[in-house]
Amino acid sequence: MKNTAVLLITCPDRKGIVAAVAEFLYKHDANILHADQHQDAERGLFLMRVEWDLKGFALDPAEFPRRFSPLADRFEMRWRLERSDHPLRVALFVSKYDHCLMDLLYRHRTGELPCHVPLIVGNHPDAEKWGTFYNVPFHFIPTPPGAKDEFERKQLELLAAEKIDLVVMARYMQILSADFIRRYPHRIINVHHSFLPAFVGAKPYHRAFERGVKLIGATSHYATEDLDEGPIIEQDVVRISHRDGLEDLLEKGRDLEKVVLSRAVRWHIDHRILVYDRKTCIFD
Amino acid sequence: MKNTAVLLITCPDRKGIVAAVAEFLYKHDANILHADQHQDAERGLFLMRVEWDLKGFALDPAEFPRRFSPLADRFEMRWRLERSDHPLRVALFVSKYDHCLMDLLYRHRTGELPCHVPLIVGNHPDAEKWGTFYNVPFHFIPTPPGAKDEFERKQLELLAAEKIDLVVMARYMQILSADFIRRYPHRIINVHHSFLPAFVGAKPYHRAFERGVKLIGATSHYATEDLDEGPIIEQDVVRISHRDGLEDLLEKGRDLEKVVLSRAVRWHIDHRILVYDRKTCIFD
Amino acid sequence: MKNTAVLLITCPDRKGIVAAVAEFLYKHDANILHADQHQDAERGLFLMRVEWDLKGFALDPAEFPRRFSPLADRFEMRWRLERSDHPLRVALFVSKYDHCLMDLLYRHRTGELPCHVPLIVGNHPDAEKWGTFYNVPFHFIPTPPGAKDEFERKQLELLAAEKIDLVVMARYMQILSADFIRRYPHRIINVHHSFLPAFVGAKPYHRAFERGVKLIGATSHYATEDLDEGPIIEQDVVRISHRDGLEDLLEKGRDLEKVVLSRAVRWHIDHRILVYDRKTCIFD
Amino acid sequence: MKNTAVLLITCPDRKGIVAAVAEFLYKHDANILHADQHQDAERGLFLMRVEWDLKGFALDPAEFPRRFSPLADRFEMRWRLERSDHPLRVALFVSKYDHCLMDLLYRHRTGELPCHVPLIVGNHPDAEKWGTFYNVPFHFIPTPPGAKDEFERKQLELLAAEKIDLVVMARYMQILSADFIRRYPHRIINVHHSFLPAFVGAKPYHRAFERGVKLIGATSHYATEDLDEGPIIEQDVVRISHRDGLEDLLEKGRDLEKVVLSRAVRWHIDHRILVYDRKTCIFD
Repeated sequence: MKNTAVLLITCPDRKGIVAAVAEFLYKHDANILHADQHQDAERGLFLMRVEWDLKGFALDPAEFPRRFSPLADRFEMRWRLERSDHPLRVALFVSKYDHCLMDLLYRHRTGELPCHVPLIVGNHPDAEKWGTFYNVPFHFIPTPPGAKDEFERKQLELLAAEKIDLVVMARYMQILSADFIRRYPHRIINVHHSFLPAFVGAKPYHRAFERGVKLIGATSHYATEDLDEGPIIEQDVVRISHRDGLEDLLEKGRDLEKVVLSRAVRWHIDHRILVYDRKTCIFD
Repeated sequence: MKNTAVLLITCPDRKGIVAAVAEFLYKHDANILHADQHQDAERGLFLMRVEWDLKGFALDPAEFPRRFSPLADRFEMRWRLERSDHPLRVALFVSKYDHCLMDLLYRHRTGELPCHVPLIVGNHPDAEKWGTFYNVPFHFIPTPPGAKDEFERKQLELLAAEKIDLVVMARYMQILSADFIRRYPHRIINVHHSFLPAFVGAKPYHRAFERGVKLIGATSHYATEDLDEGPIIEQDVVRISHRDGLEDLLEKGRDLEKVVLSRAVRWHIDHRILVYDRKTCIFD
Repeated sequence: MKNTAVLLITCPDRKGIVAAVAEFLYKHDANILHADQHQDAERGLFLMRVEWDLKGFALDPAEFPRRFSPLADRFEMRWRLERSDHPLRVALFVSKYDHCLMDLLYRHRTGELPCHVPLIVGNHPDAEKWGTFYNVPFHFIPTPPGAKDEFERKQLELLAAEKIDLVVMARYMQILSADFIRRYPHRIINVHHSFLPAFVGAKPYHRAFERGVKLIGATSHYATEDLDEGPIIEQDVVRISHRDGLEDLLEKGRDLEKVVLSRAVRWHIDHRILVYDRKTCIFD
Repeated sequence: MKNTAVLLITCPDRKGIVAAVAEFLYKHDANILHADQHQDAERGLFLMRVEWDLKGFALDPAEFPRRFSPLADRFEMRWRLERSDHPLRVALFVSKYDHCLMDLLYRHRTGELPCHVPLIVGNHPDAEKWGTFYNVPFHFIPTPPGAKDEFERKQLELLAAEKIDLVVMARYMQILSADFIRRYPHRIINVHHSFLPAFVGAKPYHRAFERGVKLIGATSHYATEDLDEGPIIEQDVVRISHRDGLEDLLEKGRDLEKVVLSRAVRWHIDHRILVYDRKTCIFD
């Protein structure tokens, strides 16, 4: 297992940032494995991700904030340090359709998704078998109409108790309250079964079928208070034709959903995503 | 050059249609080269395209309508017969961006687009050089605001004089009047520089850039009175990332536009498209 | 569940085939749902697939062969009749990598793959858990070097006992003997983890990595005595870059393998594939 | 027009490289626009591309080598400095098929390819019209069998006279001699009409058609003495089916060839490509 640190930085763009950061890391004997940066010229914004080996790094990670602060302050950075030996704790939310859930759990088991998955939350009992199979506690929390305050409270307690870092809505078919979302800013990933911003809202496959489009898509994005308007993380499409009925669209769509959601989760837990405004910068 | 006939049929779905059509053609010694059909179960609709060699066909094409009518009436068919030796007459409309125009003219010259192109209509003078190069008459018809009645009248006169079958809006940046469109039902092909129905309307690349999508698209469709709402013929997308600026989107988009527009024209002049409701059936 | 018949025909191309077949079906009150055909001009070959509703069909399927034979003989047809109420019996072979196995079993359970799966054969014990989870008998048959005669005999006995129609090599990492393959002509589907014919043979991802290709692929095909040379059913690719290490290729490749293999199985059990020479015709 | 410098570096990977380079640039007031790097762990290799604005840069580019040398020597760098105000001089070679030529010339005119194109060399007279249209001198140099020494000498004289930096084989259907290639190491870009390493050699579309593949591809690569074995720059594919005849493959292939060749040229003249061993690293 790798033992690395990832530093993520956003700050106003100006000269000398890379030199300062690289010099700081070099001074403490960092062996840089990946470094990537992006300038958003329009916004005058600088974004950076740098990953280095903790083996041989001369600075105790616990000491990092204190030592890095002067530099960060000088450049007005918003920054955070992540460590591969502190993998994120991820909760999977699911309703009746379980294809994304089973896909994520399989990828987790094969090591593709290096994170902890301490719990599954479902509002249908069917998904429990996956919890059993993969040995992940499954919590059945029904979501009757009018009781959102109550069932969200239960969900939030679970998330808090398990110190969850990331909530993945693996085709969880409930709209989260604004309060819920505010507690996990850019830490809730949803998958929408259309190529956003086309077919915002309900029943996108039905509407795609009606409209006669020649490609259907799926989109993973961070959940925000504006439904289907959060920063897009990943999108993909597949070709359809007049021969495809609604059933075929649903089937082809499932494969898209699995792919775009699992990529989004992968990039999030690898700390490859920086959000600015309504956009994401994905460092590869 | 091939010498074939194409029969296109739409009718209520019921038993015996294929048998009747195939029997009719066989009786007149048709050597069928391609036959394809589609049932739209939802609408109870039957759609068919059949192409045969006119060499050895025992029926004079001029006689076809009279002979085929009884069968067509029996099944309440809407049908038409097209002949490869009567290639369509296509007018190309263009404004300032000439990438689609030059692409279509090149494909026409190489034989990819078996049709006649008797005229180019432009509201900018720049495209004239392409007319000169490819030896196609170029008509410069300015489109000042408020003068739509007048300049469309000139355009329509040209189209009538040249017996135009199909108008291709090769990035022609004017909205056609309802009257113009009604004269060429499902015979005007437009290209929209987004993955419809996303980014309907103006400046789609700018809005795609603002929204932070991860794929951009282009759509070719028949022009109808509802702008950007006509039956979709073809769509394609290309991946973009946070590194792509607006300029890059425009550049990548140009390649998409060329591809989706030229495919649509190709399929139309090959008589591969049947429109029903707002959808297209593309026989391949 | 649908109740349809599928007729698959290959014969020398000549006039009147469609008329004769359509007339035959119409005479017996068939409600045709799909019909598709293909002419291979080079080989003078006609290929056809027609599917109709058995509800209302006036001919007992058991009677079909006797009644259809005169017509079939007249056109020198090779043909077969398949029925959706006689779903194929499919055996899944697996070794250590279980991503294709789990994917196929999941699709089977959701109804995407309408077939019976009476057995899994594995030469590693790991896959047993999937058999247990999906309630499919798992047979562990080790494959020690030099004992191919013996373990293939056991496998073939199982296949015979369960009346298997189709063998799917879901990343089963043994080369089947010529004798085994001859018993299931065009009834064994394999997945090769490259874009054939590139990287025929062992360790394709390693060689793709070494060669510095910009796309990697996967191929599903019928197994024949010439390794990796059988008729190709489906292929797909995914983009890679210099940033992708060998591990990334393996990971991305797994998603490709799942997709191309499951599509091939789907088309085979839907009776959509006709093989001619080394090619496949996939009726959609 | 932009006025930037690009520094490209390859060296053994070790600590402190980024810090040293960034510090050097910062010291001279460089406003870095893009910086990207790659570590090839297997080969212990570090590769970097950094681009900065020359406006405000305190170091005369002519002085750069002398000042940068100590740092470069310390890290054993192979490096070069490129300037956007010294665009590359590109020669286009063509035979009979002119789709790549016309595509590159069009992109050049629209500004997509910021370079000089002082000459076209053709061994068929047909392409002259493009030279005339775009006002680029066309040199007709026939290539009779057995006379390679002689006609290559003429070609090389032209290239030398025009101080050509990059030769683009835009479907130029002659094999260059080893001597020719050695004079332009990694400065000759070729397009092969298959998805290499599939269908190395002649007539790839014919062989793809025979083999029954489901996707066809095209590959742009640097020409080396081993035919079709040079470092791959870009590849792309398009789906085909049993319905596509050889003509269709050729047609679809032309679109692929245009795309992969023009991308390769674009990246080369933007100084985005670093070659190591037989691979390319494409900085985006």
